[in-house]
Amino acid sequence: MPATTQIATPDGVSIAAYDFGGSGRPVLLIHGYSQSYMCWGKQFEGSLPGRFRLAAMDLRGHGASDKPTDAGSYEDGKRWADDVAAVIERLGLERPVLVGWSFGGRVLCDYVRHRGQDGISGLVYVGAATNMNRAHAGPGRASIPNMFSDDLATNIEGTRGFLRACTAEPMPAHDYEVALAYNMVVPAAVRRVMMARQVDNDDVLKSIRVPTLVIHGEGDTIRLPESGRHIASLVPGAQGAFYPGVGHSPFYEAPERFDADLAAFVDGLK
Amino acid sequence: MPATTQIATPDGVSIAAYDFGGSGRPVLLIHGYSQSYMCWGKQFEGSLPGRFRLAAMDLRGHGASDKPTDAGSYEDGKRWADDVAAVIERLGLERPVLVGWSFGGRVLCDYVRHRGQDGISGLVYVGAATNMNRAHAGPGRASIPNMFSDDLATNIEGTRGFLRACTAEPMPAHDYEVALAYNMVVPAAVRRVMMARQVDNDDVLKSIRVPTLVIHGEGDTIRLPESGRHIASLVPGAQGAFYPGVGHSPFYEAPERFDADLAAFVDGLK
Repeated sequence: MPATTQIATPDGVSIAAYDFGGSGRPVLLIHGYSQSYMCWGKQFEGSLPGRFRLAAMDLRGHGASDKPTDAGSYEDGKRWADDVAAVIERLGLERPVLVGWSFGGRVLCDYVRHRGQDGISGLVYVGAATNMNRAHAGPGRASIPNMFSDDLATNIEGTRGFLRACTAEPMPAHDYEVALAYNMVVPAAVRRVMMARQVDNDDVLKSIRVPTLVIHGEGDTIRLPESGRHIASLVPGAQGAFYPGVGHSPFYEAPERFDADLAAFVDGLK
Repeated sequence: MPATTQIATPDGVSIAAYDFGGSGRPVLLIHGYSQSYMCWGKQFEGSLPGRFRLAAMDLRGHGASDKPTDAGSYEDGKRWADDVAAVIERLGLERPVLVGWSFGGRVLCDYVRHRGQDGISGLVYVGAATNMNRAHAGPGRASIPNMFSDDLATNIEGTRGFLRACTAEPMPAHDYEVALAYNMVVPAAVRRVMMARQVDNDDVLKSIRVPTLVIHGEGDTIRLPESGRHIASLVPGAQGAFYPGVGHSPFYEAPERFDADLAAFVDGLK
């Protein structure tokens, strides 16, 4: 069990952060849209905790973090950056590697835009989205509009469809149920305002000067692998790792390769 | 699809109500702890909508109703009664039969205590709890304390265990997933304050003079059948229907018998 901390952020939203301890370089895991820190369960149980100082957080509106439902709490990138900075500071993560899955890729860009790169030692974009480019949006997103619905039955069907599209092969029932459960704690209003946020982070990507790794499933139907190739093409010197037969959740679908690629990347940092 | 209405209640909480139409006597279905109106899915798809004016609601803190997290919004029985009265008035349900499952049995008692019996034509207690008597609490409740947890993993395990205990035989995966999903929209804080509410409704039960039906599964491990027998023994002239081999969810586990028993009861009303 990780040590859980509730951290007050500048605009008053409390963010849940999870510290798995360890003494190596800090790695902070940032989940995707509608998910929670629990998505990284295979990482917590794998080889990473013994090698690095592993930590995770629930994004605002998600998991055990506060869930204000006003649009203002979600549309300003500075707030997302402040959340990450608050976790880094409160947990004492010295120059961590930031790992962002899917929407978490936008949060990485928010952090770099508003907080710079002096406080981090590397970035890892996983099945990541950094802009609103529809050419990178796959057919697995078809269920997402139903996730915005205040009608409970519609919302649940949307969420179930979204989760089915998050992996290339079906999740075992236990894992699917648990993921469904933590996805459902995210209010429909939060899902709506998050997706309404217009962002283009190509300028940020071009400005990155810390080592960057892009991991993307070749079978990702939520965010097409073109999204990962786009990120890798813009970030100077970025490494790319594209996993055949893997969908939107490389850390879950191919945890051993993911952990090995992440560990090699972190070990290679100065 | 039912017509859905959001109804403002006296203390400002918006309650979601669902109207399935029909022209017979109105029947208002009130779900249990941590659930939603969707628990009555088999009733909506069965024979009842063609025979009665079928309606349902989400309790405050549940489903698509507002979910304030302060204890004050849940500890006063008058507010629960006001919610039911607001739904009856707004949907124009003339002297409905109120059907309360589990915690919904307390809500029926709240209604009778604070609103009297002139506005209703009958009461149906289903797997119901009307007091805090521990002698009526079964081993299926073991998971409930974990449902209070702000720790997401603990909360999810508690909710999964509670739902497994809600039926004598395991639910099919689809139904279990959907139920898990709507249970997870209920905040942990709401679950805590609801269970902290101390009530004894024996005085109310003894005062009931409208026709009353008690339906309880003999295999109910959440609320033991003794709870149903207790209610039936106190309500003057109450009818009892105890279902062998059925757990906490008779309307789901034995929908044809449930619908038939409910229809016969409603047809027998003056």
